[in-house]
Amino acid sequence: MYVRTAPTQRTQPLSDPIPDAPADPLLARLATLCEGRGLAALGARLGELADLVSGDLSACEAELAAIAPHLPPDRRASLVARAGGHLLDLGGKRLRPLCVALAARLGDRGFDSAARALAVAVELVHGATLLHDDVVDLGETRRGAPAARMVYGNAAAIFAGDWLLIDALRRVRRARVPGTLDRLLDVIDEMIFAESVQLERRGRVDADRGAWLRIVEGKTAALFRWAMWAGGRAGGLDEDACAALERFGLHLGVAFQAIDDVLDLDGDPQATGKSLGGDLREGKMTHPLVVALETEPTLAPLVAAIARGEAGGEALGAALERTGALEATRALARARAGEALAALGALPRGRARDALATVAQAAVERDR
Amino acid sequence: MYVRTAPTQRTQPLSDPIPDAPADPLLARLATLCEGRGLAALGARLGELADLVSGDLSACEAELAAIAPHLPPDRRASLVARAGGHLLDLGGKRLRPLCVALAARLGDRGFDSAARALAVAVELVHGATLLHDDVVDLGETRRGAPAARMVYGNAAAIFAGDWLLIDALRRVRRARVPGTLDRLLDVIDEMIFAESVQLERRGRVDADRGAWLRIVEGKTAALFRWAMWAGGRAGGLDEDACAALERFGLHLGVAFQAIDDVLDLDGDPQATGKSLGGDLREGKMTHPLVVALETEPTLAPLVAAIARGEAGGEALGAALERTGALEATRALARARAGEALAALGALPRGRARDALATVAQAAVERDR
Repeated sequence: MYVRTAPTQRTQPLSDPIPDAPADPLLARLATLCEGRGLAALGARLGELADLVSGDLSACEAELAAIAPHLPPDRRASLVARAGGHLLDLGGKRLRPLCVALAARLGDRGFDSAARALAVAVELVHGATLLHDDVVDLGETRRGAPAARMVYGNAAAIFAGDWLLIDALRRVRRARVPGTLDRLLDVIDEMIFAESVQLERRGRVDADRGAWLRIVEGKTAALFRWAMWAGGRAGGLDEDACAALERFGLHLGVAFQAIDDVLDLDGDPQATGKSLGGDLREGKMTHPLVVALETEPTLAPLVAAIARGEAGGEALGAALERTGALEATRALARARAGEALAALGALPRGRARDALATVAQAAVERDR
Repeated sequence: MYVRTAPTQRTQPLSDPIPDAPADPLLARLATLCEGRGLAALGARLGELADLVSGDLSACEAELAAIAPHLPPDRRASLVARAGGHLLDLGGKRLRPLCVALAARLGDRGFDSAARALAVAVELVHGATLLHDDVVDLGETRRGAPAARMVYGNAAAIFAGDWLLIDALRRVRRARVPGTLDRLLDVIDEMIFAESVQLERRGRVDADRGAWLRIVEGKTAALFRWAMWAGGRAGGLDEDACAALERFGLHLGVAFQAIDDVLDLDGDPQATGKSLGGDLREGKMTHPLVVALETEPTLAPLVAAIARGEAGGEALGAALERTGALEATRALARARAGEALAALGALPRGRARDALATVAQAAVERDR
């Protein structure tokens, strides 16, 4: 770990799931984590969340698992199908489909087949960006396993990303939920230009909170925004409710990325499936680094040396602790989760709304 | 040139355009070529074609040229916009927009703003594939200039391809011509899996006409099919007429690729903007090679050595001549152009139909 003593005492999660853990693996992991960290109330609420959506998530999972195997025979064995299937088989948190499902369940129509198509599509768009990102960043592992490009090559990974993207758009198109395709195209456009900003800033060591936020809003939060809005539309909610859901998605996305940034420097690689300091070595200024550099500009040469691979990350631990950078980032995540909760005020009360509140809280308490 | 003596005598095109050459650069070049090769009748018909569509093509060109410069200021200077704009600025034959324009002009509505949007979109999809292809094939030049990836890097080229693709889909969406978006998504899916077949066969030296055709139908002809079908729909033609246009596009696409394959081995790099034998060095079995290997299987080690860069292409010239491989490929192109002409029989007579016949003939007589 980069951080020798974490600024807040953190208990390790229990290694065995608690006896009445929810069936869904994500929710089970989150519940386990909450128990381990003394967040029993949140653990109990995650159990309720699981009751509500474990069927929805299983349906999504089954559909995602079937995509590559159900291709026509001449395509099933293709490099593109295998590279795309490889990524999908690695699983993931499926947080974006969960957002679609809960948003849809707020409305009268609930999580019907159209909503399920949107939930699968949002995970496919996310997968497409991961495939292209790993090529761009020369990423070697993904979700604790070799990245698709390491197994099938860069070319197959690029085309597999194209495939998942087009497949997602076709699903959204077929679902015929008004406005969802137009908005998804707009969101993907935002994501691409945020990738461009990140690319241009690669290796630049500076404390620019504005740039960090622009990248995160485009790369991460935009797709969460769409997941919430599209789920709400599929569920039959009106414009105002969907706008509130979109605000929830924006804040949840920023909070989620802030915690990702913390985990890059202070996570357990076994849990996250990513190597520690990976973002920094890819030349990306995560939020804790922005805070640390803002507080102590003299850290720049050290950060630059680590980014260039010319220094190990150990020396950074003390600096992150001294500057309170990780805690400041966690505080940002908590504040954004609070904004997300506030956005829920405009929405119909009920189990789905309570579950979204739980998601926002769990997103900032997670360790993976 | 790989071919020391071409199997059919070919006169060099005149270096100066003929006095009454059409204003459009593509048509001017084609007309020049026809004059130079004693195809005066075709040259004259290209002049008529220019009268009909030079305004349409200029409108497309203006719209393509405006895409990157008209982005919002924060995006205009981005790496993605510059990489995408670089490719668009290099020009190209704009044959796919020409297909949309002529197909639209067969109908009552003609080349209106919706048809123009589709014409621009088809060129953007083509551009997206070129950007990704150059990354995959490590292509260094494109249209006689450094490829976008050489100027802006692989990462920017990948995201720029994503951008042009999404931009194309947004344009098709906004044009709201029934069926065009669904079909374009289907066609892009076909293109991706054809890329996958090509990737899997890379470096494999064998005489498989079926594989060649599968790749070409997916990679090249599918988008021509869409251009014709979508143009016809925008122009207001009925299903039967659009189906005939789609057949025209299929055959034109195959003919076009066959000539591309000839030019890879027997073209003038100054004219084509590509280095001679480039496809072979990228491990791609072009049609003349398939024919040559079918006729003389003992050529395989030589072809493999050239593909690996361990032998120059000179020795191949005699083999291509001996086996009549280039002429057989030209004959295939002519036969497919004939099929394309036959498909026109079902369509309304008039200048647009005559112009499409001219395009089919010019596609197989071109030298670039």
